[in-house]
Amino acid sequence: MSIHPTAIVSTKAILGENVTVGPFTIIHDNVEIADNVVIESHCELGVTNQRTDDRPLVVGCNSHIRSHSVLYACSTFDSNFVTGHRVTIRENTIAGKNFQVGTLGDIQGDCIIGDYVRFHSNVHIGQQSTIGNFVWVFPYVVLTNDPHPPSNIMQGVTVEDFAVIATMSVVLPGVKIAGGGLIAAHSSVNRDTKENTIYAGSPAKAVGETSKIRLKDGSRQPAYPWPKHFKRGYPEEAIRILESIASDYE
Amino acid sequence: MSIHPTAIVSTKAILGENVTVGPFTIIHDNVEIADNVVIESHCELGVTNQRTDDRPLVVGCNSHIRSHSVLYACSTFDSNFVTGHRVTIRENTIAGKNFQVGTLGDIQGDCIIGDYVRFHSNVHIGQQSTIGNFVWVFPYVVLTNDPHPPSNIMQGVTVEDFAVIATMSVVLPGVKIAGGGLIAAHSSVNRDTKENTIYAGSPAKAVGETSKIRLKDGSRQPAYPWPKHFKRGYPEEAIRILESIASDYE
Amino acid sequence: MSIHPTAIVSTKAILGENVTVGPFTIIHDNVEIADNVVIESHCELGVTNQRTDDRPLVVGCNSHIRSHSVLYACSTFDSNFVTGHRVTIRENTIAGKNFQVGTLGDIQGDCIIGDYVRFHSNVHIGQQSTIGNFVWVFPYVVLTNDPHPPSNIMQGVTVEDFAVIATMSVVLPGVKIAGGGLIAAHSSVNRDTKENTIYAGSPAKAVGETSKIRLKDGSRQPAYPWPKHFKRGYPEEAIRILESIASDYE
Repeated sequence: MSIHPTAIVSTKAILGENVTVGPFTIIHDNVEIADNVVIESHCELGVTNQRTDDRPLVVGCNSHIRSHSVLYACSTFDSNFVTGHRVTIRENTIAGKNFQVGTLGDIQGDCIIGDYVRFHSNVHIGQQSTIGNFVWVFPYVVLTNDPHPPSNIMQGVTVEDFAVIATMSVVLPGVKIAGGGLIAAHSSVNRDTKENTIYAGSPAKAVGETSKIRLKDGSRQPAYPWPKHFKRGYPEEAIRILESIASDYE
Repeated sequence: MSIHPTAIVSTKAILGENVTVGPFTIIHDNVEIADNVVIESHCELGVTNQRTDDRPLVVGCNSHIRSHSVLYACSTFDSNFVTGHRVTIRENTIAGKNFQVGTLGDIQGDCIIGDYVRFHSNVHIGQQSTIGNFVWVFPYVVLTNDPHPPSNIMQGVTVEDFAVIATMSVVLPGVKIAGGGLIAAHSSVNRDTKENTIYAGSPAKAVGETSKIRLKDGSRQPAYPWPKHFKRGYPEEAIRILESIASDYE
Repeated sequence: MSIHPTAIVSTKAILGENVTVGPFTIIHDNVEIADNVVIESHCELGVTNQRTDDRPLVVGCNSHIRSHSVLYACSTFDSNFVTGHRVTIRENTIAGKNFQVGTLGDIQGDCIIGDYVRFHSNVHIGQQSTIGNFVWVFPYVVLTNDPHPPSNIMQGVTVEDFAVIATMSVVLPGVKIAGGGLIAAHSSVNRDTKENTIYAGSPAKAVGETSKIRLKDGSRQPAYPWPKHFKRGYPEEAIRILESIASDYE
């Protein structure tokens, strides 16, 4: 255990073995950190508000939380959770294994996130979003939830397994992004999409199957399903899943 | 008064009764905080630059400033001001009662903001913006000001009372968003809009009256004007105004 | 030298004369700060990761790094570097003289940035971006790099001298924005552009020469090339360059 002397760690917080806490970081009462977790400087973990109850913030083993991040109570992150800098994740977020969320990510809470999900920098995930496994969300994407803002109606977005939402796209309330689909950059998706299909534009329209896109590495192999050629940064057990998915498409 | 021992609070700053200052927060000389204000950790209040003068940062009573926020001198916030995390508000911002600005908000200064205004996460408000009362601005909206960037000409945006600007819309320099109007998500507004009218697209076009939109709660009641059905989170005196507005439309 | 007593500065870091380090700021081992540099509060300089090596973070003289910023090792900034608040700049970023990057800027590393470049708030600069001299990038612009995300192919964006990319535009992978060009707000650029030409829309199309745009100051003079009328905030030697550029167009 290595807690920097300037860190403020509640005696009620539960810290596993080999946890590192950086300078100027605050860990409140209702926090449970598993083994081998690094929490960098200037973070605040276990924030409470009028929507939080007694459930703790749980951070799984081998996680890495980068500087200036803020995580609320009543959220759970499975093992190998990784954040960029200045990430904000609110209450009632439940994330699976090896969730990665980039710098400036803003997860509004009340979300379910599957295993091996990747959010790049500066995504905004509205409340009631449901994210499958192996999903990719790129910078400045917004998942909305209010069909006629401001209102008390909340219709979260659903993103199915292996779907990819490219930079600066908006997904409108209640929309389902189907498995293996690709939302092109700068799109606005206002209705449910079909599996393994590319959507582009505002409002987004289907423009073909993802398998039509060829890798720009000279191989002319299909770029999708992406598990056929991309496994960088995943842990071993995820790579096995990616390989079996890829072989399904042979 | 509860000032954390790690906070750095200037002896020249004026703090009211029952003010809380969190760990690692800095309050500079020219700051006046009214009663019952909570300032969370890692904030910096009263920042100066070459555009600030002797006028203080004034924060009204019952305000709540969340962690990692940065507020400049020469700005004034009336009572019940609330911020999310990592908000940045520069000099010469004058905001009315119960202004709420979400996480990552970036207000560039030289702005006037009315009463009961709501900015969701990650809005960018250019200098010379003028915002009315009860306005709603959703994530990743940008209010611009330079008609031919970069230049020395600045034409701020005006947003009138009860207008709503949805996610990831850009309002171009000098444009006026008329009262009660709705700018749909992912729009780009390049000319003045009409009252109680929906605009969508890039460039945005009028697509009907806001009263045509029906609530998706099964009631089939009009979703706009929104004060008819939405009053969550407003203080009592604001709710009275919202109720009188709503009854005008009966 | 003025290092706040709460700052944590490695004894291996090299600090020039008249360097100011604010409260709660961390400076790691592999950092070289030249003379007359101000580093504000809550920053972290010299961050390392699995992609950094022994090369230090180098910050040139007369620079100003605002609060809550995070700069990685293996990057070099020439003199008069200025950041806004909460800027993140990763490894292998090489920037020329008087680079200014606004609040919330997110530079992903592996970038080359010329002299006198201006990034406004909240830009996202993907890896492998190459930015010329006197370039302007406005808020919520994203420079992408992956032609079929996620993949291992990276095709960075090139932005040539004096080009301007307006608010909330996306530049797709491998695209070159030609010198003196103007990308209008809310555009999506999917192919190389021509010099001194305006592009707008999604996908962006050429809509005329930049010289057609007239200054809205009553003069009716051309607004582009912008060095003819705009020199605010540049140091003397840059103003001389801007003046010579402007006279070429007489």
